[in-house]
Amino acid sequence: MKADRKWSAPPSELLVPFDGSFRVADAPTRPPGPVDKADLKKRQREHTRTIYDLQRKLYADDRFAALFVFQALDAGGKDGTIRNVFTGVNPAGFQVSSFKAPSDEELDHDFLWRIARRLPERGRIGVFNRSHYEEVLVVRVHPEFLERQRLPRYELDAIWAERYESIRTFEKHLADNGTIIVKFFLNVSLAQQKHRFLRRIDKPSKNWKFNSGDVRERKRWPEYMRAFEDALNETSRPWAPWYAIPADSKPYMRLQVARIVRETLESLGVDFPEIDDEARAALAKCRAELETQ
Amino acid sequence: MKADRKWSAPPSELLVPFDGSFRVADAPTRPPGPVDKADLKKRQREHTRTIYDLQRKLYADDRFAALFVFQALDAGGKDGTIRNVFTGVNPAGFQVSSFKAPSDEELDHDFLWRIARRLPERGRIGVFNRSHYEEVLVVRVHPEFLERQRLPRYELDAIWAERYESIRTFEKHLADNGTIIVKFFLNVSLAQQKHRFLRRIDKPSKNWKFNSGDVRERKRWPEYMRAFEDALNETSRPWAPWYAIPADSKPYMRLQVARIVRETLESLGVDFPEIDDEARAALAKCRAELETQ
Repeated sequence: MKADRKWSAPPSELLVPFDGSFRVADAPTRPPGPVDKADLKKRQREHTRTIYDLQRKLYADDRFAALFVFQALDAGGKDGTIRNVFTGVNPAGFQVSSFKAPSDEELDHDFLWRIARRLPERGRIGVFNRSHYEEVLVVRVHPEFLERQRLPRYELDAIWAERYESIRTFEKHLADNGTIIVKFFLNVSLAQQKHRFLRRIDKPSKNWKFNSGDVRERKRWPEYMRAFEDALNETSRPWAPWYAIPADSKPYMRLQVARIVRETLESLGVDFPEIDDEARAALAKCRAELETQ
Repeated sequence: MKADRKWSAPPSELLVPFDGSFRVADAPTRPPGPVDKADLKKRQREHTRTIYDLQRKLYADDRFAALFVFQALDAGGKDGTIRNVFTGVNPAGFQVSSFKAPSDEELDHDFLWRIARRLPERGRIGVFNRSHYEEVLVVRVHPEFLERQRLPRYELDAIWAERYESIRTFEKHLADNGTIIVKFFLNVSLAQQKHRFLRRIDKPSKNWKFNSGDVRERKRWPEYMRAFEDALNETSRPWAPWYAIPADSKPYMRLQVARIVRETLESLGVDFPEIDDEARAALAKCRAELETQ
């Protein structure tokens, strides 16, 4: 049974509902109970091995592309989760794009332009480390960034709704054309972020990752949480779902992400294509020719 | 001790010399003695783990990009070698580009244009599955492909020397600017290619990889070998070396490639950057601010 191009998200308790009822204050940042780190890590690696197998079928099947988007506040665990979940997949057929502050050239286009250029090709898996959602998260908390974008005109109380609509219709179009989009909000607590920042300061090999501006942004925490809540409610849809992942335990977070990636790929029903009778006859002819060489 | 930006290839018996003395007829396609497959695979995996560690330093160090180019005849083992050597590296910071027959848009540019667009960024590892070398390999064996390229004028006995020069100066420029280029010729024998084609025909899960045109190309074997010999002699240089890898044994080939990739990255002397006193003072200030939050 092959899945249709019209795919929709497998159920999960971490799935952000499609009816706008997600409340970030009620979303857990911690695992439901005590965790056995070694066991979580082992189960995550099993999922990664299965992802490797599914990836080969995704490539041979050549009907879908799969895009996994990661958004989080600083020290939420994006880099480490991407590294851990996807180290072990075949890097041919896989691409990670990191989106930083837009360049002058990128600002001379609409905000989806640079995103569209990095979409995975059919048969491939793509990962976005940050994404077009920065435009309704950090830019919403810092509307002064809009000045650099030189929009023709905008009203601050209307622009976010416009952007949600742009994103929804963009993602619907991609889903209709075979690109599956699954989005992860790595939901870390204020206290755990502080803990991770202190480690970056105290561990010399992590110093280069630390940016002092990150400490200042902690004062905006409630505004960021509101921006996340609105963005997730406005853009979690069956064809492009959000998952809110408890992120205070790294091994638990990585296991959940690996599981959802695996279940997403499994739900596509991809497999090695079978060749038809005509192709089989051509193969037999080739075989006879080869035997004489 | 940090390496200079001016890097040159570590010595190896598989290195194609820089003086034009490479003879493809003398280059081995088989391992020097009997092989223990399990042992070769184990050693290859050890190299891959080390490549993972070196990759993190390459990224943090942020002075070099490393590009590994793979060229071979069909069934030479490019896909499998790339998959085996690099499955286990961090796919963020890694990108594989496969070059197929050029598109109309690509043909409307010089032959290095599409190559330049896929070069790895500083701090990253790039892999080319086929490359600009197709222009002096398959195109040399099939000069009729030149018609599609609509060159202003050319003489068939001068164009290859022009192309070698274009490639040499392009690669020298990249090396001067921090992109290390290491090129692998996977050297498979005519008999082993036949064996692998037969397996693709006889194994249903490999049928989709088989292309009946590949059998016809076997008649051009001597012309391909001449094209490889010339290209390697003309473009193996200390800053952009070629290695001729015996390719009849897959585990042996993969081990050699993994070893050379590892030694290349080791020879760069990359490491996690240390921060200076000023940055250290800023960190201490951040730490104090965080503690009050």
